[in-house]
Amino acid sequence: MKRPRILLTNDDGIGSEGLAAAYVALCRIGEVVVVAPHTERSAMGHAITVLDPLRINEFQNQALSGYAVSGTPADCVKLAFGTILDQPPDLVVSGINLGPNTASHVLYSGTVSAATEARILGVPAMAVSLGTHRGPSWDAAAEATAKIAQAVLRHGLPDRVLLNVNVPSLPRHEIAGLKITRQGRSRFAEDIVRGHDPRGTPYYWLAGEYQMTDDDPQTDAWALQHGYISVTPLSFDLTADGAIPEISKWVL
Amino acid sequence: MKRPRILLTNDDGIGSEGLAAAYVALCRIGEVVVVAPHTERSAMGHAITVLDPLRINEFQNQALSGYAVSGTPADCVKLAFGTILDQPPDLVVSGINLGPNTASHVLYSGTVSAATEARILGVPAMAVSLGTHRGPSWDAAAEATAKIAQAVLRHGLPDRVLLNVNVPSLPRHEIAGLKITRQGRSRFAEDIVRGHDPRGTPYYWLAGEYQMTDDDPQTDAWALQHGYISVTPLSFDLTADGAIPEISKWVL
Repeated sequence: MKRPRILLTNDDGIGSEGLAAAYVALCRIGEVVVVAPHTERSAMGHAITVLDPLRINEFQNQALSGYAVSGTPADCVKLAFGTILDQPPDLVVSGINLGPNTASHVLYSGTVSAATEARILGVPAMAVSLGTHRGPSWDAAAEATAKIAQAVLRHGLPDRVLLNVNVPSLPRHEIAGLKITRQGRSRFAEDIVRGHDPRGTPYYWLAGEYQMTDDDPQTDAWALQHGYISVTPLSFDLTADGAIPEISKWVL
Repeated sequence: MKRPRILLTNDDGIGSEGLAAAYVALCRIGEVVVVAPHTERSAMGHAITVLDPLRINEFQNQALSGYAVSGTPADCVKLAFGTILDQPPDLVVSGINLGPNTASHVLYSGTVSAATEARILGVPAMAVSLGTHRGPSWDAAAEATAKIAQAVLRHGLPDRVLLNVNVPSLPRHEIAGLKITRQGRSRFAEDIVRGHDPRGTPYYWLAGEYQMTDDDPQTDAWALQHGYISVTPLSFDLTADGAIPEISKWVL
């Protein structure tokens, strides 16, 4: 059987540890091409670069070789499909992100948006994130990446659906299991740091801290916090179906 | 009755015509505070600025006075709530955007993401866009903005739901009516322009053209193209509910 072709990207940048961990895991199951942002592009959401040109540079470090792009995660996917790959891949994997992408993180996440972009372009896609910002333990996440990637390659994904995977930063034997989840409601407690720059001009710096408030075991945030690998099917059809009857009653 | 307090933002920048059109219309129904990007920040998706400080400058032109922010549309909402407003507004309006935000546009849209950010922060919110990029006719869109804003203020919005409004660029008497719609499937036909910069280095520029492929009259893209004002309730719970049973059957 032909080995599957996998496009690997992320939002932490092409030199990041999490990308290297995913690369090693995915090379065991397919041919992997890496196209990732040159530098960290976190919290980019689904930004694309339309007002400026983009650059592509070949990249190599001890872990991998690939293509470094000057743009956002979604740009990387568009450029990979449009210039680097001669045919669409069988799967796009985005990650492994250093830090969770659960609950409201999903909306800001460049990691998720790269997978969304791939799904818009018609290819099965998954985002993978590690549930910690420090002292990362990549083994369980790398193993989950390969295992879930194989399942996606085998089963395909429903129309307009991608997978958002979050893995606890725990040794493999401490992982509680795997749950299919819903996007939770936890969000940032807003905070803005004010200061003055070296020229005396005021600045404002977003500094909100994520607060875990989900107590529903069906949510991604709960699952991750309780040691489970969380797999959430996400849609990019944002229509709030349940609201249509109510709003249709308004006199407009 | 106390006049409602409305925060107005956009992604085309604080000096744009569409913002001024919305400002005039909304001032008839409430107290309007403008906090908008200093320059055009189109296609920013739900990007927020976490790696850099932001600036706020007072702004005034012939149409309005307000606050110009160095960041993205979502940054504007966060900063307005966190620094400029002394209490949350009753409504957030984002727009009027020059160009449609239907179908896959929704995912890239800074206009929609500003409204999403407001809804995350707990305030009813709506995005308004004009269905053309050139020769804009703002009257119908300005009127629809005020009318739908009043309806939202009266009825409120369901949990985690915002409204995405698209108005044809037509004289008022040519508007076919108003439809409550779903997000369509039309998307960009991908294209990347290649060139060399003045130093001879290759560049790549995203150049895809939007292709209207929606033939379902229930979609935003169809409604807009057929002269209707389109009102789509959007959710920021992206869970693909329909996919959960299928993926739950996978052996993972």
